[in-house]
Amino acid sequence: MPEVLVLHGPNLNLLGTRRPEIYGRMTLAEIDQRLQARAAELGLTLRIKQSNHEGELIDALHEAMGWAAAVLINPGGLTHTSVALRDAVEATGLPAVEVHLSNIYAREPFRQVSLISPVCVGHVVGFGWRSYVLGLEAVAGLLREP
Amino acid sequence: MPEVLVLHGPNLNLLGTRRPEIYGRMTLAEIDQRLQARAAELGLTLRIKQSNHEGELIDALHEAMGWAAAVLINPGGLTHTSVALRDAVEATGLPAVEVHLSNIYAREPFRQVSLISPVCVGHVVGFGWRSYVLGLEAVAGLLREP
Amino acid sequence: MPEVLVLHGPNLNLLGTRRPEIYGRMTLAEIDQRLQARAAELGLTLRIKQSNHEGELIDALHEAMGWAAAVLINPGGLTHTSVALRDAVEATGLPAVEVHLSNIYAREPFRQVSLISPVCVGHVVGFGWRSYVLGLEAVAGLLREP
Amino acid sequence: MPEVLVLHGPNLNLLGTRRPEIYGRMTLAEIDQRLQARAAELGLTLRIKQSNHEGELIDALHEAMGWAAAVLINPGGLTHTSVALRDAVEATGLPAVEVHLSNIYAREPFRQVSLISPVCVGHVVGFGWRSYVLGLEAVAGLLREP
Amino acid sequence: MPEVLVLHGPNLNLLGTRRPEIYGRMTLAEIDQRLQARAAELGLTLRIKQSNHEGELIDALHEAMGWAAAVLINPGGLTHTSVALRDAVEATGLPAVEVHLSNIYAREPFRQVSLISPVCVGHVVGFGWRSYVLGLEAVAGLLREP
Amino acid sequence: MPEVLVLHGPNLNLLGTRRPEIYGRMTLAEIDQRLQARAAELGLTLRIKQSNHEGELIDALHEAMGWAAAVLINPGGLTHTSVALRDAVEATGLPAVEVHLSNIYAREPFRQVSLISPVCVGHVVGFGWRSYVLGLEAVAGLLREP
Amino acid sequence: MPEVLVLHGPNLNLLGTRRPEIYGRMTLAEIDQRLQARAAELGLTLRIKQSNHEGELIDALHEAMGWAAAVLINPGGLTHTSVALRDAVEATGLPAVEVHLSNIYAREPFRQVSLISPVCVGHVVGFGWRSYVLGLEAVAGLLREP
Amino acid sequence: MPEVLVLHGPNLNLLGTRRPEIYGRMTLAEIDQRLQARAAELGLTLRIKQSNHEGELIDALHEAMGWAAAVLINPGGLTHTSVALRDAVEATGLPAVEVHLSNIYAREPFRQVSLISPVCVGHVVGFGWRSYVLGLEAVAGLLREP
Amino acid sequence: MPEVLVLHGPNLNLLGTRRPEIYGRMTLAEIDQRLQARAAELGLTLRIKQSNHEGELIDALHEAMGWAAAVLINPGGLTHTSVALRDAVEATGLPAVEVHLSNIYAREPFRQVSLISPVCVGHVVGFGWRSYVLGLEAVAGLLREP
Amino acid sequence: MPEVLVLHGPNLNLLGTRRPEIYGRMTLAEIDQRLQARAAELGLTLRIKQSNHEGELIDALHEAMGWAAAVLINPGGLTHTSVALRDAVEATGLPAVEVHLSNIYAREPFRQVSLISPVCVGHVVGFGWRSYVLGLEAVAGLLREP
Amino acid sequence: MPEVLVLHGPNLNLLGTRRPEIYGRMTLAEIDQRLQARAAELGLTLRIKQSNHEGELIDALHEAMGWAAAVLINPGGLTHTSVALRDAVEATGLPAVEVHLSNIYAREPFRQVSLISPVCVGHVVGFGWRSYVLGLEAVAGLLREP
Amino acid sequence: MPEVLVLHGPNLNLLGTRRPEIYGRMTLAEIDQRLQARAAELGLTLRIKQSNHEGELIDALHEAMGWAAAVLINPGGLTHTSVALRDAVEATGLPAVEVHLSNIYAREPFRQVSLISPVCVGHVVGFGWRSYVLGLEAVAGLLREP
Repeated sequence: MPEVLVLHGPNLNLLGTRRPEIYGRMTLAEIDQRLQARAAELGLTLRIKQSNHEGELIDALHEAMGWAAAVLINPGGLTHTSVALRDAVEATGLPAVEVHLSNIYAREPFRQVSLISPVCVGHVVGFGWRSYVLGLEAVAGLLREP
Repeated sequence: MPEVLVLHGPNLNLLGTRRPEIYGRMTLAEIDQRLQARAAELGLTLRIKQSNHEGELIDALHEAMGWAAAVLINPGGLTHTSVALRDAVEATGLPAVEVHLSNIYAREPFRQVSLISPVCVGHVVGFGWRSYVLGLEAVAGLLREP
Repeated sequence: MPEVLVLHGPNLNLLGTRRPEIYGRMTLAEIDQRLQARAAELGLTLRIKQSNHEGELIDALHEAMGWAAAVLINPGGLTHTSVALRDAVEATGLPAVEVHLSNIYAREPFRQVSLISPVCVGHVVGFGWRSYVLGLEAVAGLLREP
Repeated sequence: MPEVLVLHGPNLNLLGTRRPEIYGRMTLAEIDQRLQARAAELGLTLRIKQSNHEGELIDALHEAMGWAAAVLINPGGLTHTSVALRDAVEATGLPAVEVHLSNIYAREPFRQVSLISPVCVGHVVGFGWRSYVLGLEAVAGLLREP
Repeated sequence: MPEVLVLHGPNLNLLGTRRPEIYGRMTLAEIDQRLQARAAELGLTLRIKQSNHEGELIDALHEAMGWAAAVLINPGGLTHTSVALRDAVEATGLPAVEVHLSNIYAREPFRQVSLISPVCVGHVVGFGWRSYVLGLEAVAGLLREP
Repeated sequence: MPEVLVLHGPNLNLLGTRRPEIYGRMTLAEIDQRLQARAAELGLTLRIKQSNHEGELIDALHEAMGWAAAVLINPGGLTHTSVALRDAVEATGLPAVEVHLSNIYAREPFRQVSLISPVCVGHVVGFGWRSYVLGLEAVAGLLREP
Repeated sequence: MPEVLVLHGPNLNLLGTRRPEIYGRMTLAEIDQRLQARAAELGLTLRIKQSNHEGELIDALHEAMGWAAAVLINPGGLTHTSVALRDAVEATGLPAVEVHLSNIYAREPFRQVSLISPVCVGHVVGFGWRSYVLGLEAVAGLLREP
Repeated sequence: MPEVLVLHGPNLNLLGTRRPEIYGRMTLAEIDQRLQARAAELGLTLRIKQSNHEGELIDALHEAMGWAAAVLINPGGLTHTSVALRDAVEATGLPAVEVHLSNIYAREPFRQVSLISPVCVGHVVGFGWRSYVLGLEAVAGLLREP
Repeated sequence: MPEVLVLHGPNLNLLGTRRPEIYGRMTLAEIDQRLQARAAELGLTLRIKQSNHEGELIDALHEAMGWAAAVLINPGGLTHTSVALRDAVEATGLPAVEVHLSNIYAREPFRQVSLISPVCVGHVVGFGWRSYVLGLEAVAGLLREP
Repeated sequence: MPEVLVLHGPNLNLLGTRRPEIYGRMTLAEIDQRLQARAAELGLTLRIKQSNHEGELIDALHEAMGWAAAVLINPGGLTHTSVALRDAVEATGLPAVEVHLSNIYAREPFRQVSLISPVCVGHVVGFGWRSYVLGLEAVAGLLREP
Repeated sequence: MPEVLVLHGPNLNLLGTRRPEIYGRMTLAEIDQRLQARAAELGLTLRIKQSNHEGELIDALHEAMGWAAAVLINPGGLTHTSVALRDAVEATGLPAVEVHLSNIYAREPFRQVSLISPVCVGHVVGFGWRSYVLGLEAVAGLLREP
Repeated sequence: MPEVLVLHGPNLNLLGTRRPEIYGRMTLAEIDQRLQARAAELGLTLRIKQSNHEGELIDALHEAMGWAAAVLINPGGLTHTSVALRDAVEATGLPAVEVHLSNIYAREPFRQVSLISPVCVGHVVGFGWRSYVLGLEAVAGLLREP
């Protein structure tokens, strides 16, 4: 059963409490439950990690090179600023899918450039917690036929 | 059963023949079949239209104000240039989901700005024909609970 | 009695329903009535056309070269994007007045550049339906003494 | 009878002599006469002031907070450079209409940005002395029904 | 005998009347005659179309995929704004030559960027009606030895 | 007892009435009282001037070269536009502290550049009337040990 | 007694040794002593943390949501680059005050944009160690009456 | 004997005391003496005015339309910011020569754009007080043979 | 028989060996032969010069003012950088045609701006050696009827 | 024997596996061996550290202030984004040499700006693992005669 | 008697024939005569050189380091493009004065940036041949008292 | 024994005298001696040329295509402005190494873009004369194993 690394970037641990009008009222734990449930249906196993540390996210990507078949990532605020994280995603050589809860293209200008997008297969943006589930389905599709 | 307007913009009628290394080998008719099949599962009815004419796409959006519950749109090359189409999407007041076959954020700079994104709920980008199916699922989710 | 071409660009057919907080609650038919009434007072005849198709607006401008004395135009979203429409306005050689319902200079940056303004005599912006009536009076003034 | 402050900015005292091919041959006194005549018809009283001093224009706007119902302003060259004047217009809380004799959008790039426009209801641009009269009619319209 | 699609974009139907100091005094019909005469000499058959509608130009390009050996195109004002037309030119997979009557690089800044040029083999700019004839000769050369 | 010039720029005379949601409800007279009270505690004498005239502010700075030990300045809208005022602040050779009532870095882009800041020792921004009192304390600190 | 989180960003641990002509000769420990002394006078309790790790600063902000009444932060070099830190400051929902030792607006261009400022109430810049003390007084003021 | 208006803009009254390493040690009175002496040799009469008020400089230019044959102007900090002063220089219709004491093109970027230069015949920059004398000689040359 | 100056700029002497995938396999000598042959047919005499020295190209243009009727120029890399060469082309007062072997508008951004184009009648770009022949035909056309 | 801190930034631990066409096939351990061997020849001792954590790299630089004579650093993706790392390099006061394996100036635009270069003595770029060895020789030269 | 190098850049040999409406009708030989005459009055000896070759101008500057007391230079089109010439001017260590015949600040944007100005003492711009004479007087002034 | 072309661009002949605080006190002849000595050790033969003429540098590169195995180049001020030189370096097809004496990335903005870098294998910047020696070692490495 293929394994997928799910990475949550900075501040996503606060989901449900931080600016719910933008990010929704569901907590990260609840999202992870939904992801696990859907993964089971899709025949996938998930390893999930959240960190506010760029370096830990990079370490996790490196470590996943040994076991993961794909990556599902919400880079949070690092989306717009981290070349190092971009290089790490690309270095894994794994198909990656980027997700965002809010529609970053309807927000501040600095949120409208993603350094991560060009090294991912694609992204799902703007559907709240459903962005994650749709992103996982995209991963499943990629693993079935790239 | 809620009805959804599916709009394909300029040049998408050529799918399967035009630059398959970027856009894939599936024709638009085949994509429409997959969408119809998935819509049936999701309890949605689709009305699908392709046009190379900006004006016809705008007319179709206006006309949909009378019957549609949501919009699924791939604006093609108009994505980056048409304020009129943007205004039309916004004017419908309907929840809209934008999809792109290719990862526009990994292509030429002029393709990395979407005038349509800010007036959509969200978008799905980069997964070939699957972008459409995932987009339709996003529509379904929005109609179940906005 | 001099004849004036009145052109309404994309999405203006929705007036009264689309974002009334920005564009007001008067329909396009009502605006046209007010224009006809004022034209009669000013000794002008109007031919009025609305289209969501750039090409039809250009065709209408070309055709007006044979009969019109002036042009009153609200280019809608094409204001900011259509060099072809600009060239058509200029090609007529007729005095043209541009109008906008909303104050485009208090909105999104992309609405703050008009490709049409430099080829018009002047414009009236921000007064809702009254922009049209004031624009028509400007036309009348230009026809009396250029 | 509602009172309106009419403000003429720097260099407008030279009207009729300065670059008549751009600004026309009518003097400011003649324009003021036309404005007074039209105001009488519209049931408005005007207080008119011209100054080449940014500070005096700001003082006049402040002072008008006690008696004026609206403002008609041609900020001249300050249009493009004065945040202080913009703040003063906004601070009055009065509806303001901006006018320009020449079509500033067909001139040098630095004349194509107005710091004043975003704090006005709208503007009339490019019709020579008629810009003032149309602007006054716009003011009258705003006072009848905002 | 190879067939070539000749496409004239918006406003070119006005040639000979519109701004002759820039575009010359020859009508489009006269240019077409010269093109037909030269094509006969070069052993080429031409199908010629003019439209002010972006969508019709795109449709014509799509339709030409079935019969044309090459494309000669003057995109008019769409040169600078239409990603959809660019995508259509590229989608045909046919060798394309772009022509302009005026020297667009000596005019307004917005006319100095062509979205079409990068998907054409080359272009001929600035020689009035002769740009078309030279462009046709370029087409002939490409068909003889690509 | 060291004397300090306190300068209030354009529109600050309206404090308490102008956009209280941004600038607060305290009048300039009340702020001046608080400053005088705090100055007494700090062993400072204040001379306070407000003007809407750039030239008067510059004159005041020049005149202060004869008696002042430091400058506390809120340049208002001139902050973003006046090189002349900047040169005047610098020309005095006195330590200067800039204050703003609102957080100018959370407002329009044109308010986020201060021409004055580089010639001041530092600034205090965003605390309403308290910005002035904190700025005065900064002045006192600079005078005790530069 | 309200508690305040004081955060020192990267390289501030070197204070007193690093470029004293810009940052002064006082060590961070000495600044912390002055802050503690002033906090006692103001009736505040401080928890102070310095870190060179963006992630630890974010973690500290998250953790403070459980106990702190306000935040005093000098983000160091992260001021200009960290969207993640900005989001963390905003996510706490606590009033925050930003301080800088040097006048960042008189230094390199890249230091003149702060990503943190727009999510703080205000900032104090340029007064060396006194920036911290003034910032703490600003915090105290905000807690007394927001 | 032709008369020349000599205008000194903001802060030039401080010459000799303000930043002598940039502006030199000669006072404005001494420069005026040198100008008067040189004017006598050149057969010119000078009327000299210094003001820190943009409006007074504009008024002086307007008033000079009645008597002056040319203008010699150092606009000081207004050089880079005042469209109103530019318009006033142009409105006089008199030949104007711009001078600067320091080499503004070797200083801050905002000092490297002059709004005044394009409406002057030429300028002399960087020679300290000699810039004035050379500028006066340029004026004399223009009056002898334009 | 009219004489034409043909100028080849830097590195064109390497044609046929340098990056043939971009510039083709024909040597400059072979191109010159084709040009001479075509010139004979067109009733033109050619003087041809290649140089890697900007100054020699300028000298050649100056010298041609005494004998040439037109100029055909491929400025090579100087196209994008040499104001001096541009001024020389313009100074000759001769009709000039610019040619490029490769489609410079499909290459690096710095190759997409030509300083030379605005002072030429037109240009031919992207057809390899045929660009020269087409350019020569354009010259012939200009000499027949300008 | 002088000691040198060698710092490898994010993702460099993957060398030999990550994009070998860009970064080469040698592992970081092999590079470190070559550096150690060359250091022995040059009379230098090396302490080598790799980290994917910006904070750890900063900590290492701070700690080196106590023992190192120089720094050799490949900041990886942090090159382009980390002001904090730049400040740390500068804060050490040690001579620093920057190295990059690939020619960053022939890659994406965002890789062509280094925040670190201005605070280093110099850099060596584009020679794969040899960049490190050449950089170490540069360090040795600086230590022999600065 | 101090010696001065006078350098004329590209295309200045054409003076009197090239675009006289911009550059005047006096030939370079005539200007040189006027300069020699004025130099004699000022007690200066001139060595004058014109070249269309950047390299020769640089060589001349280098050679002048052995004998010249100052430089008077009109860099022509190289003004805006040549870092090498700028470095040569600076390398001489001689006081240099830049002159331009036309008012480059009233022409095309690319002529409004001078790479040479920042390494000169000052410049004289816009007075035709008189720019040279005034520039020579500036040189004389600098040599009398720097 | 492989031969290497060493090219010194404009102004490098002045080394040792020109701005020694930036470029050092060693003359070009001394650098060439060090290069020759090091080349002998590395088994390389050098041909060295300095020129202030862009054209001569290009000629030298062309000529080297017949005998050189590699190029070592310091393009001086042409680094930032010469597309022609860039094309010549690329046209040789030889491995090229760029060196600079000063750290161009710590100087004026216009020195921070190299047109030459993208067509070189790599560069060595900032180590004074040692940049050349390190660059030569890089060349030797490339020739041993590319």
